Amino acid sequence: MDRAHALALDAADPLARFRERFELPEGLIYLDGNSLGALPKTTAPALEDLVRREWGRDLITSWNKAGWIDAPARIGGKIARLVGAAAHEVAVADSTSVNLYKLAAGALSLRPGRRKIVTERGNFHTDVYILEGLAALTGAVLEVVPTEAVLDAIDETTALVVLTHVHYASARMWDMAAVTAAAHARGALMLWDLSHTAGALACDLTGAGADLAVGCGYKHLNGGPGAPAFLYVAERHQAAIRSPLQGWMGHAEPFAFEPSFRPAPDLRAQLCGTPPILGMAALECGVDVLLEADRAEAQAKGRALCAQFIALVESRCAAHGLRLLGPRPMDQRGLHVSFAHPEAYAVVQALIARGVIGDFRAPDIARFGFPPLYLRHVDVWDAVEILRQVLDERAWDRPEFKARAAVT
Amino acid sequence: MDRAHALALDAADPLARFRERFELPEGLIYLDGNSLGALPKTTAPALEDLVRREWGRDLITSWNKAGWIDAPARIGGKIARLVGAAAHEVAVADSTSVNLYKLAAGALSLRPGRRKIVTERGNFHTDVYILEGLAALTGAVLEVVPTEAVLDAIDETTALVVLTHVHYASARMWDMAAVTAAAHARGALMLWDLSHTAGALACDLTGAGADLAVGCGYKHLNGGPGAPAFLYVAERHQAAIRSPLQGWMGHAEPFAFEPSFRPAPDLRAQLCGTPPILGMAALECGVDVLLEADRAEAQAKGRALCAQFIALVESRCAAHGLRLLGPRPMDQRGLHVSFAHPEAYAVVQALIARGVIGDFRAPDIARFGFPPLYLRHVDVWDAVEILRQVLDERAWDRPEFKARAAVT
Repeated sequence: MDRAHALALDAADPLARFRERFELPEGLIYLDGNSLGALPKTTAPALEDLVRREWGRDLITSWNKAGWIDAPARIGGKIARLVGAAAHEVAVADSTSVNLYKLAAGALSLRPGRRKIVTERGNFHTDVYILEGLAALTGAVLEVVPTEAVLDAIDETTALVVLTHVHYASARMWDMAAVTAAAHARGALMLWDLSHTAGALACDLTGAGADLAVGCGYKHLNGGPGAPAFLYVAERHQAAIRSPLQGWMGHAEPFAFEPSFRPAPDLRAQLCGTPPILGMAALECGVDVLLEADRAEAQAKGRALCAQFIALVESRCAAHGLRLLGPRPMDQRGLHVSFAHPEAYAVVQALIARGVIGDFRAPDIARFGFPPLYLRHVDVWDAVEILRQVLDERAWDRPEFKARAAVT
Repeated sequence: MDRAHALALDAADPLARFRERFELPEGLIYLDGNSLGALPKTTAPALEDLVRREWGRDLITSWNKAGWIDAPARIGGKIARLVGAAAHEVAVADSTSVNLYKLAAGALSLRPGRRKIVTERGNFHTDVYILEGLAALTGAVLEVVPTEAVLDAIDETTALVVLTHVHYASARMWDMAAVTAAAHARGALMLWDLSHTAGALACDLTGAGADLAVGCGYKHLNGGPGAPAFLYVAERHQAAIRSPLQGWMGHAEPFAFEPSFRPAPDLRAQLCGTPPILGMAALECGVDVLLEADRAEAQAKGRALCAQFIALVESRCAAHGLRLLGPRPMDQRGLHVSFAHPEAYAVVQALIARGVIGDFRAPDIARFGFPPLYLRHVDVWDAVEILRQVLDERAWDRPEFKARAAVT
């Protein structure tokens, strides 16, 4: 592989036409779309129309006229196609953390005799924190166990298993169908966090028999900073699962003003407060672009980019002690690549200063994402060349690259 | 009062200059700013800059560079000035419903020996629903009592009293200081829902000794459809109160990726997931406009508009059986006016068809809001004239005005 080969791959890329659908700053190589997806070109005009016409001119009538009230279900139905669910099994609402709380509490309501929740040590920390908070309030018992002990920790007292399908750091991917089956074999429910899966990988919640899922709107779904998140409840659980966050949008008749809560008989029961319309509109633009691409083709290209990055880093930066996280087989990984390095924070800052944006994850991880719709093989080549220069020149070894910012 | 008098009042209005700060459609009289505030002229350009420059061009770096990470505290600090709190006592986050859940659960954590929550029958329904959900999960006991029984229901088993300061339907206003003192006298905490107060009335949470509060961003704060909400925790409670929705943004060091939750020692502990940046930016524009106006002056004008509306409706529409809700003294009311009428839904639709937007609240309430920064006395005159015509002509008595829409 040399730069000419990378260019040749790009020339033959059937997804190449998608790059122009995004606003990408000239001269920047953006390897952080797994943290904040790039801006689709449709988003700014859509938001301007929403603000000026739907809000500014039509005002309150847009709840009906512009379909604002249907946004959680409408956009959820689109995301459903990305994660292998039926349209009525996915809704957009709140944040990933809040949705996890709702569904994990709901799982306890579906398994009344069971109090144990199992998750993985090293799962994305907000998932663990949310489960800790739920356990503290309800008396549920949270078991946070090492990766290799997860399956054995599931027993007949387990109400719920919560795992992130693609690990935020290592990109290691759980076998969704196998783990779900293992949970079911012991009578437990399975909740998948799809934050690094949705929009990145082909995903089949229905085929895996999954019960519950949540996921993030601002990573591979390109929904913008702090975009609303989504949640999935398999149809078979929708009538019985009870969210403790029972706000008016989850009521069977939100505008009947009944004195007591009566849950909607379907997924609407998992909604809570008034939906965030601005964020929803941006999310819909991001999802709409993804839906135009073939999922299998996008996954294949994303994995090819990751494989190229790993191979180039390991061959061209071999002297610098970078250690790959996660498994090597591409079909056991998501679409980001992390290397551990003692100076990872400073290395990432030095890369940013040279126009390659990745991100740092504590304590020592440099992470790079490869969304297939707007990244090219030549970007990967160029990024590794700049990484090689940063490392060879020890360009990271400057105080300004070591001073931690508020957000890392 | 005739139309000329209304015009004379407008000519003398010291707040008249604020009207041009909002986008108001020609020929429309918008009396629903208490449900969805009008669009400030600064909002669309601010959002376009956020989307195209901060997101599109600067991408992930905007979390630090553009201050996205500080938005919850920064905008909260601005709202604090509208509700009489210290800047570090208010933050923007989630929806009103979710914030109510967090703080009500937190109140239980502050009063461990007490299990009773008291609220008012007829309180805005999502508030009751949320408290029901919390009670069902925790074993707390929710007492929903008639208005006149609220004070007597507070006893030494009461952890928390939850009231909406200005009633969503009747506009009746609780005496914040007196009720808070009554709750404190029995050792209970006081949580105010300020959804119809913030940005409308002068408000002094500190002076009233309030413990906790929540409020809505899309009504008088003009934050746009589904804007993020706010929450207030008095400084004296911030270190001890525990939210069960403990997401990563509430951690003392969100980016340290610690394995277990360690709450921030201040109000940040009440944050949960990633903040919704688009909605926050719009909310900030709405709040910024309000901060330019004198609060007492705005409250006085709003009350004058309400008084004018009540007087004109009762004199000019006297034959039609409209019944005013709430008290008559203006200092016991917020800035909306509701009349009960058996055909309220159809009347509101007929008004909308003639360019006067109010809203309907089940079962029989026509509600009209009077935000003082963009409404004029002549708007009130003209609205009542159109209402008179609709009623005199029975213009509401048509099938298309009686067919209920999804959102009412």
